[in-house]
Amino acid sequence: MPASPIGPELQRLIDLLAKMPGLGPRSAKRAVLYLLKKREPVMRPLAFALDDVASKVTACSVCGNWDSIDPCAVCADVTRPQSVLCVVQDVADLWALERAGAHKGRYHVLGGLLSPLDGIGPDDLNIGGLVMRAGEEGVTEIVLALAATVDGQTTAHYLTEHLEGANVSVTRLSQGVPVGGELDYLDEGTLSAAMKTRRPV
Amino acid sequence: MPASPIGPELQRLIDLLAKMPGLGPRSAKRAVLYLLKKREPVMRPLAFALDDVASKVTACSVCGNWDSIDPCAVCADVTRPQSVLCVVQDVADLWALERAGAHKGRYHVLGGLLSPLDGIGPDDLNIGGLVMRAGEEGVTEIVLALAATVDGQTTAHYLTEHLEGANVSVTRLSQGVPVGGELDYLDEGTLSAAMKTRRPV
Repeated sequence: MPASPIGPELQRLIDLLAKMPGLGPRSAKRAVLYLLKKREPVMRPLAFALDDVASKVTACSVCGNWDSIDPCAVCADVTRPQSVLCVVQDVADLWALERAGAHKGRYHVLGGLLSPLDGIGPDDLNIGGLVMRAGEEGVTEIVLALAATVDGQTTAHYLTEHLEGANVSVTRLSQGVPVGGELDYLDEGTLSAAMKTRRPV
Repeated sequence: MPASPIGPELQRLIDLLAKMPGLGPRSAKRAVLYLLKKREPVMRPLAFALDDVASKVTACSVCGNWDSIDPCAVCADVTRPQSVLCVVQDVADLWALERAGAHKGRYHVLGGLLSPLDGIGPDDLNIGGLVMRAGEEGVTEIVLALAATVDGQTTAHYLTEHLEGANVSVTRLSQGVPVGGELDYLDEGTLSAAMKTRRPV
């Protein structure tokens, strides 16, 4: 058996890169070959940026967003209305709503969804913090921006029950035909939901 | 305009990751969110591995393969026959041939292909080193394992001419139907080439 053409340092880097979502063993190799040719402009800055983020970025103690300041930039932004609180499963969803400019208020990151099958219960999510924030002065509405899945609906039901004591209205994202979506390609559940909740033009 | 939910440290890391082949801005964000949850097992080791590779790995002075030792592990492997030298465009091709176990001898990495349109001439490639190695004692065959493209063929012609002085036979990879390939999906050029070079069963 001849020696591997890939040395131990390179192999370790390939193995670590291959763990990232969106990269597999082959694309990790391609990425390493690219990085070796871009050592100073990309590879060393990337090493530094990873270390920097690993050291500085923490979960915001108010909403759960990732940031190097605590409270995070979104919570610290006094121009944002404090009345509407948007509940999301994960930071990725917070970023997606911000990218869309869909929500002007503040957020609350649950850190997951209730999932009896996966053994994820209320204590694994940041629900206590949400109930506390819902009781804060000025908060009038909680928008549940959760996935339209079984786990998302289970979580929405649970949260709605536990927010009954707070003096807030609880809403959720509407369901229907995605913008730009063709009916022919939509599943029956979405079509039925869109028909049931049809609105005057 | 509200503040961005993504702080400057995170944004810089996302921008650097998005430069890698196989990752775009969206998958870079997903990768960062993954890394933040895997700080100690993946993120810090990745930062270290990048720095380590950037500092230690160089191009082998003999063949051009990337390794932390020079000559590289492939060139230093005395069990490999010295008679057949395989010429490849890039280190990625060397790794691909090794993965396939298709070549037992040593390699020579050109570092690209001749491409008049892109302004890549003979001086941009490691051709002098190849001609020198072709004249070494014991080398009897040079296999041109280059892409079956116009640039690959231009480069193969150029190399064949410049290797005429050396006492070696110059060969190239055969062209034809890929193993597992269906005829229906192959282009006309490949089909014609496979028909012209047909062999007895």
